[in-house]
Amino acid sequence: MALAQSFIAVEPDSHFPLQNLPYGVFSSRDNAVRRIGVALGNQVVDLCALSNAGLLRGQRCQWHDCFRQASLNSFMALGRPEWREARAVLMRLLDKNEGRLRDDTILRQRAIVPMEEVTMHLPAEVGDYTDFYASREHATACGEMFRGHENALNPNWLSLPVAYHGRSSSVVVSGTPIRRPRGQVLGPGGPPASLQACSVLDYELEMGCLIGPGNELGEPVGVAEARDHMFGLVLLNDWSARDVQRWEMVPLGPFASKNFATSISPWVVTFEALEPFRCDAPKQDPEVLPYLREAGRHSYDIQLEAAIEAQGGGGGTVTRSNFRHLYWTLEQMVAHHTAGGCNLRPGDLLGTGTLSSAATGGAACLLEASRNGANPVALAPGVERTFLCDGDAVCLSAHCQGNGFRVGFGECVGRVMPARAGQ
Amino acid sequence: MALAQSFIAVEPDSHFPLQNLPYGVFSSRDNAVRRIGVALGNQVVDLCALSNAGLLRGQRCQWHDCFRQASLNSFMALGRPEWREARAVLMRLLDKNEGRLRDDTILRQRAIVPMEEVTMHLPAEVGDYTDFYASREHATACGEMFRGHENALNPNWLSLPVAYHGRSSSVVVSGTPIRRPRGQVLGPGGPPASLQACSVLDYELEMGCLIGPGNELGEPVGVAEARDHMFGLVLLNDWSARDVQRWEMVPLGPFASKNFATSISPWVVTFEALEPFRCDAPKQDPEVLPYLREAGRHSYDIQLEAAIEAQGGGGGTVTRSNFRHLYWTLEQMVAHHTAGGCNLRPGDLLGTGTLSSAATGGAACLLEASRNGANPVALAPGVERTFLCDGDAVCLSAHCQGNGFRVGFGECVGRVMPARAGQ
Repeated sequence: MALAQSFIAVEPDSHFPLQNLPYGVFSSRDNAVRRIGVALGNQVVDLCALSNAGLLRGQRCQWHDCFRQASLNSFMALGRPEWREARAVLMRLLDKNEGRLRDDTILRQRAIVPMEEVTMHLPAEVGDYTDFYASREHATACGEMFRGHENALNPNWLSLPVAYHGRSSSVVVSGTPIRRPRGQVLGPGGPPASLQACSVLDYELEMGCLIGPGNELGEPVGVAEARDHMFGLVLLNDWSARDVQRWEMVPLGPFASKNFATSISPWVVTFEALEPFRCDAPKQDPEVLPYLREAGRHSYDIQLEAAIEAQGGGGGTVTRSNFRHLYWTLEQMVAHHTAGGCNLRPGDLLGTGTLSSAATGGAACLLEASRNGANPVALAPGVERTFLCDGDAVCLSAHCQGNGFRVGFGECVGRVMPARAGQ
Repeated sequence: MALAQSFIAVEPDSHFPLQNLPYGVFSSRDNAVRRIGVALGNQVVDLCALSNAGLLRGQRCQWHDCFRQASLNSFMALGRPEWREARAVLMRLLDKNEGRLRDDTILRQRAIVPMEEVTMHLPAEVGDYTDFYASREHATACGEMFRGHENALNPNWLSLPVAYHGRSSSVVVSGTPIRRPRGQVLGPGGPPASLQACSVLDYELEMGCLIGPGNELGEPVGVAEARDHMFGLVLLNDWSARDVQRWEMVPLGPFASKNFATSISPWVVTFEALEPFRCDAPKQDPEVLPYLREAGRHSYDIQLEAAIEAQGGGGGTVTRSNFRHLYWTLEQMVAHHTAGGCNLRPGDLLGTGTLSSAATGGAACLLEASRNGANPVALAPGVERTFLCDGDAVCLSAHCQGNGFRVGFGECVGRVMPARAGQ
């Protein structure tokens, strides 16, 4: 069967073919109202305009109204049957053989906006943001640096997906500049600490899962039902101030070292679009407790990359990894998060934690790649980094490679601005 | 000068005299719409009704519109000059010598609702909830239990107000039943862990500060300006599953042990109402870094109490403490929270951490009071506890004692329900 194609042109290496249709929130040069769209090739299809034009009708009644909102939260709340129908209707409407939009010049003018003319916003209001620590490769590498090879993994790591609550107010959309934070740091001579600009600023290449319907307080989501609550994925950069982190984090975990910014990519790729790229998840040994045990353990074959571009040019790729290496699945994260009754709400964000692979170049943050600053990482001839410099842009990207098409995530970019002047 | 009094009767030991006027969100038997009110004696004054009747007018233009909302977030966002004017207008309108409301029988019927007829809701939508660990007495007592007398305080504790991000979705209003959580626990024999009902469930007596205008991402709030961003205080119970906490918290801090529920009291007592009860805060030694240094260090003389009432009766007070003992002030918490650029938003919640005092009976959680279960605490003849039993209601209360009046917080109550059946 030939691959379905749209009447909107899509290059073969585009992240956004008809098979993807990721959702995002945008405004445009001539319309400052935030509205929901899908990406297609290098165009944005305005779903509010299509809904107003009466082109978004299905048997289910709720989803097209959600496309008149300024965020995806209401749509996320509906659940998979509505998501599936919306996707099917959109794929049909945008297909090259379907004339209703294709042949309506006036509506096309209104509803199809070149990507270069839009400003992207956060796809959802993030009520709560949780960050996991689910990559065995990353946890092992960090553990070896700080506790030695024998004690690399903490005793609980293989028993539960370790996580902490992050800060939702400072989740920002790709493109937002990242101010190097100031924070309390302990110098090499020991106490007293001082307040200074972070000198070991790092990125962390992660993915983030946006939550769908969620659960009531006190009502856990079983691991077999967890998928019903997973709307889609974005790229996530968990910016980290390593010197601040080292001083503050015992005993209650990271706080100021992380809460100054978390970047996410604007286009939410749905699990429907990722379906062709399902693969097995790593085998777990020891066997996990029944509430985390899955009949089939699935992951996704998503190629991940992080690049650093120095101000004025120069730089290159620092990380090549893959989502499939993640030891704990998203389903297990949802089950563990809710096992004690904690409620998830539509638009909540679950970060995977730094997504490293065991291969050369697979370390997904500079702490790990440079062995805590001991081994500078070469980005390009004459350009190397131990940690991030002012002016550096960190660019995360990801895609699944299909047969003749890609389902991609676009980019998650943030450029480091110098710290504010000290007091 | 005689104490101003309202035409609404207020008993001398009431928590809600004319001098208090705490804000809350309520609905009533005959009107399910959530609206803003102030507590006065045993009545609730409906500010939406007063605003609609045109009685809430001042020179500033915004605050009376905010009283038509279903949460206090918009009012919190306005800042102290608007809060002050609103308070002055309300105090005048409710004064016994002012006839506009007093003599309007029809409006009184509509706008003054007996407290026993109302249901209280969360006063604000809590965007982010942060919990500090700011009581030296509590941090020392916990440290002694787990690390011995010599290492009681972690090295960073006297240098910064230690905090972690909590879960905002599970912040619930007083009266909400608390389901005993299930969670991963390590048995005395060591690994493997098992999923089971928490067997050492605890309360933590804290106070919570609700944030006012807040700051833009990247723009710290100086310690001298921090007060401008503090709207008011509530009681807060940071329910804690100690066995889950012990197993999960290294290295990223508490997660499932805390995120199943956090209770707060419904009435937000403003800092204007607390003004007469300002007192010195504890001296800090060693001197703190300049960004945390205050010209005058102020606290508030707020008497705190926690009681446990067993199902079917029996029980009594377990904690008597005072807010004034808090080592880190709220201003320092705001300054530290934002020093790296993290943004606070209106309605964000900052918990103080367990508010213990050094006096006998001053331990503000059962972990501390029972020395981790070693010494049962007597509640009443024949009733003792090491940790909470199913059916126990924990009742936190607080008030400031003035000359002939009290400024109180009412209560923050939660009853423990049995855990869900195991899988």
